[in-house]
Amino acid sequence: MKNSSTLYPSSLSLLTDLYQLSMAKGYWKSGIYNKESIFHLYFRKVPFHAYYAISSGLELTLDYLENLKFDPKEIQYLGNLKGNDGKSIFDESILNYLQRFKFECDVFAIPEGTAIQANSPIIRVEGPLIQAQLIESTLLNIINYSTNIATKAAIIKSVAKEDACFEFGLRRANGPDGALSASRAAYIGGFDGTSNVQAGFIYGIPVRGTHAHSWVMSHDSEIQSFKSFADVMPNNCTLLIDTYETKLGIKNAIEIGLQMKAKGQHLQGVRLDSGDLYDLSNYVRRALDAAGLSETKILATNDLDENVIENLKKRGAKIDLWGVGTRLVAVSESLSGVYKLSALKNGDKWESKLKKSDDHSKISWPGKLQIKREIIDNVMYDTLFSEFDHESDIKGKDLLVKVMDKGKRIFESPSIHQIRQQVLDFIHSIPIKKEHSWSIDNRLSDLRNDLYGE
Amino acid sequence: MKNSSTLYPSSLSLLTDLYQLSMAKGYWKSGIYNKESIFHLYFRKVPFHAYYAISSGLELTLDYLENLKFDPKEIQYLGNLKGNDGKSIFDESILNYLQRFKFECDVFAIPEGTAIQANSPIIRVEGPLIQAQLIESTLLNIINYSTNIATKAAIIKSVAKEDACFEFGLRRANGPDGALSASRAAYIGGFDGTSNVQAGFIYGIPVRGTHAHSWVMSHDSEIQSFKSFADVMPNNCTLLIDTYETKLGIKNAIEIGLQMKAKGQHLQGVRLDSGDLYDLSNYVRRALDAAGLSETKILATNDLDENVIENLKKRGAKIDLWGVGTRLVAVSESLSGVYKLSALKNGDKWESKLKKSDDHSKISWPGKLQIKREIIDNVMYDTLFSEFDHESDIKGKDLLVKVMDKGKRIFESPSIHQIRQQVLDFIHSIPIKKEHSWSIDNRLSDLRNDLYGE
Repeated sequence: MKNSSTLYPSSLSLLTDLYQLSMAKGYWKSGIYNKESIFHLYFRKVPFHAYYAISSGLELTLDYLENLKFDPKEIQYLGNLKGNDGKSIFDESILNYLQRFKFECDVFAIPEGTAIQANSPIIRVEGPLIQAQLIESTLLNIINYSTNIATKAAIIKSVAKEDACFEFGLRRANGPDGALSASRAAYIGGFDGTSNVQAGFIYGIPVRGTHAHSWVMSHDSEIQSFKSFADVMPNNCTLLIDTYETKLGIKNAIEIGLQMKAKGQHLQGVRLDSGDLYDLSNYVRRALDAAGLSETKILATNDLDENVIENLKKRGAKIDLWGVGTRLVAVSESLSGVYKLSALKNGDKWESKLKKSDDHSKISWPGKLQIKREIIDNVMYDTLFSEFDHESDIKGKDLLVKVMDKGKRIFESPSIHQIRQQVLDFIHSIPIKKEHSWSIDNRLSDLRNDLYGE
Repeated sequence: MKNSSTLYPSSLSLLTDLYQLSMAKGYWKSGIYNKESIFHLYFRKVPFHAYYAISSGLELTLDYLENLKFDPKEIQYLGNLKGNDGKSIFDESILNYLQRFKFECDVFAIPEGTAIQANSPIIRVEGPLIQAQLIESTLLNIINYSTNIATKAAIIKSVAKEDACFEFGLRRANGPDGALSASRAAYIGGFDGTSNVQAGFIYGIPVRGTHAHSWVMSHDSEIQSFKSFADVMPNNCTLLIDTYETKLGIKNAIEIGLQMKAKGQHLQGVRLDSGDLYDLSNYVRRALDAAGLSETKILATNDLDENVIENLKKRGAKIDLWGVGTRLVAVSESLSGVYKLSALKNGDKWESKLKKSDDHSKISWPGKLQIKREIIDNVMYDTLFSEFDHESDIKGKDLLVKVMDKGKRIFESPSIHQIRQQVLDFIHSIPIKKEHSWSIDNRLSDLRNDLYGE
């Protein structure tokens, strides 16, 4: 796959906005590149009207940081970029620096699968200014998308409760690894599986699937196509019953289900993909039960999201399994994560920094940030503070943990299966659509006001 | 980067929904796998209230098809997938078939950068049923996203007219190659460049960038940060002037611009990233002109899309360059492409097929489809017909061309620079937001009615 239009470059070092490299040159040339700095990645608003997000993407981020280097061809490409006078933008000196580049910052992060409220730092990077800045775009790219999808999945799963949910979004996801990242993030958010076989292969996520309308259409009759599918998939047989007419489809499926039963096999499910899912699922459930196929499950698909699912469940739809695609992986809201400088070391002294804005919500947080969390009566109480202030009476557990020491990965992540289980336990006891408490340590708000007023 | 959580698998063969492999097994076992079939990829609705879409993603699709094979580890993974009785879903016989798999279909497609109306086939695949079916998910994944972004880019570019537009969406795109595909598709749709350096490296797309707020914040004062940036980037200097207060920012930028001018250099631009872009751009333009810096351009960013840009231009904003991010690459509408079986060969005879639906717009098109296009007075007249019917009096040019012969790529695509130029020429003469004519050859509608009534 390595040709000029390949989807899969071998390195992510150039997956960055040009301005990161321009600033790298600037920091290098002006001699401040090695100043110790602190940056935080956070988002200002939880999407989908939820009160917390589910963090996701850290492992992918650490993979990126651990492998960040520029190969000779990439350096050559940068050397050939020309400015408005026809001369190179990047000179030998910065190109030499980049060729030797190795990421050596300390990184703190909130582990994947953690509930995070708006304005909480998810990642804190401490190290030379040039290094901590250079990684901004890629960190945002990875964390924004993964966290967005994990959050949407958790919301859907909160609504679906005990029902299994499957991610079927491959064809609507944003390109090949958009699909792969989406499958991983949806699983972390509590989904039960995916149709994306690659996500099963790479991450060990359970894979699930039925058949397409074309399977039915490529046979002389629907019943013949069902029979043929049951013959070749006796132990994984879910039949799609709406290719022609659902009420005839279920008759055919039942006939096949009874034949399977007679052979000691089991018709696992039928799938509804159109029409009024409330009416049809009740009709189909009654028909299956009347035929003695009460173990056969009903899977629904067709533009589902948390609102549709909640509404169907409230009305009493008889759906056991939910397949969610477009409205999970190609969602209309994206996470608006930002990555901001919050402190710089001058000699031995840390100076806190903030980004001003007329829009108060856009003023950034200064200092070396950490979050303390307590959970009381199923409500999260989070307090943002700066570690520059001596720790005091703030109760709770630190959310950010050290994941890299001078560029070396030191965090052993739980498996994605363990992370998913933690998320499920959490969202089922601590509501994602109920307000929680987020407050700021007094000393930090005073500092912010002081800096803003300067 | 090759470890268990890598973003970049070496092969895309498993980037498919499980059901494609289940159906492959089914076709294989039931002996109909080699039946000649015809499938079409098309979409039912142009997104973003436009009347045509801009096709994109074909080169990536052909890369995928040309390299489609299953490696031993992937085969082993499939062999280990278990059904509800604890036994394997896929047996030796189908695994052996997959291990030998080679894509050998004929493929016809509408070249990238072509205007396409809803319900027009973009890709036609002809070949053994098992092969033509297996590729469905990946084709949809690639074409849906690329075409969606190229279309959005073309709409924005139609509105921006002569102004240059840059894609700045990396941090909000859906994962690393979501970003890369977006940069490529936006360029095909007429954009002038991207901030994504990887897209420059891989595709030769012009890259563009300024600096971040953190650049300003990491210096003792704004003017010092501007001076330093001009020193290191004398031939590619665009200054971001809203870190503290835009009206002070432009004063500082002008001071630096005049210093550069005195040295024979050129302040390329200033960037506005917040506030009322109409007011500020007029203020900044007047200030620049009064200082003799009328060559310095104004670049605007901040949640721009076609509506915001059109409105700003109508009011008389003095903006020369537009940077568009989130609302280009993470759009709320996705292209709802589908891939449907339309004909099967029985012995020597082709039988046309369709997918029924109560929803009339979801009934698929039978036959071996092609589109004829005529353009008269800047209106497209497209006619859908089936090549099974002898060609007759339909005027115009065939849109689908042969791109693969028995799995071998035979289409030489123009460069993406040429494609982009064609798109620009097209959208500037043939409006994307004006209705065009799309009709169906009588024999095809008769056939569809006959099949539906069966």
